Amino acid sequence: MAEAPRDIEALIALMARLPGLGPRSARRAVLHMLRKRDLVMQPLAEALARTAAAARDCAVCGNISTADTCPVCADPARATGEICVVEDVADLWAMERGGAFRGRYHVLGGTLSALDAVGPDDLRIPQLIDRIAAENVREVILALNATVDGQTTAHYIAAALAPTGVAVSSLAQGVPIGGELDYLDDGTIGAALRARRRV
Amino acid sequence: MAEAPRDIEALIALMARLPGLGPRSARRAVLHMLRKRDLVMQPLAEALARTAAAARDCAVCGNISTADTCPVCADPARATGEICVVEDVADLWAMERGGAFRGRYHVLGGTLSALDAVGPDDLRIPQLIDRIAAENVREVILALNATVDGQTTAHYIAAALAPTGVAVSSLAQGVPIGGELDYLDDGTIGAALRARRRV
Repeated sequence: MAEAPRDIEALIALMARLPGLGPRSARRAVLHMLRKRDLVMQPLAEALARTAAAARDCAVCGNISTADTCPVCADPARATGEICVVEDVADLWAMERGGAFRGRYHVLGGTLSALDAVGPDDLRIPQLIDRIAAENVREVILALNATVDGQTTAHYIAAALAPTGVAVSSLAQGVPIGGELDYLDDGTIGAALRARRRV
Repeated sequence: MAEAPRDIEALIALMARLPGLGPRSARRAVLHMLRKRDLVMQPLAEALARTAAAARDCAVCGNISTADTCPVCADPARATGEICVVEDVADLWAMERGGAFRGRYHVLGGTLSALDAVGPDDLRIPQLIDRIAAENVREVILALNATVDGQTTAHYIAAALAPTGVAVSSLAQGVPIGGELDYLDDGTIGAALRARRRV
């Protein structure tokens, strides 16, 4: 036999596919749950089933929540005329963690990528253009990853939004807070130098 | 608001309590599942619910499986008259991974511990003594951790089994296979030296 009965092995294999878990840590997690079946395993199973059934993409911005309109889009205080464009829901959550942005979001669902054959029609760019007029947007802030694909996508969106006359900006690049120059890559140091500010 | 809706945050908190996962990796795992609700989240919820309902402790040895008697105890080929005593189900599974042992197991459910007030009555030691006669056991192999508590427990069990006349042995201590002396602790090197064998 495998170490564990077949159905428990199947559960371990499912857990092992989650990011951040491998076969060994999945086994440890499942054993932990097996020891606390009523306290941990059953509640987790219920929470997963409930969330899987209730979760949906926000019809406006593409955020994932358990309502048709996500809490950000449903909050009238956030209709500030600013839309922050992010690649992915994870980036939206990261922006919210920071708490610095009080406007609304637009999740693209990826970046343009020649390698992966992702074109403009595969992203939610037309929906973004529609929102500019519909929500009376004054500024679009591009919060895309500082990768080649992210920056290609940023340029494409800036060009696509040009006819609407909306202001388009992007996150500043430079030295991260708490960052030590010695550990930074050359590209970041170069970008921070070019964008230097008078003190 | 928190980054995610409240029910999703609750799910992340549940996941973060699993060993090997923290708040950040739990968030990543939940986001991954939210993106693949039908492919990953729903099957995992079902597997967890099914296992939580079906899993039980083997009445004989204390292994966890989905039957009243675990696959090891149910296998007649493994009635070899040898019982391997382990602290925990995780240790039983580790022994099975090795595949070197073909007898049966007995899970203690912990070790004696003065600090945590675990006495002999809190472990499954009486059940072990009952099995010696009932299963015609010739040898008990103590596969307990090489910690202070593990070795205290091993000594206690050896004394408790003395009246039954069964042979009691324990795993050899020494240099692990592939182990480099330079990286080994002094205690292991000393134990390996004391237990040296003629080649």
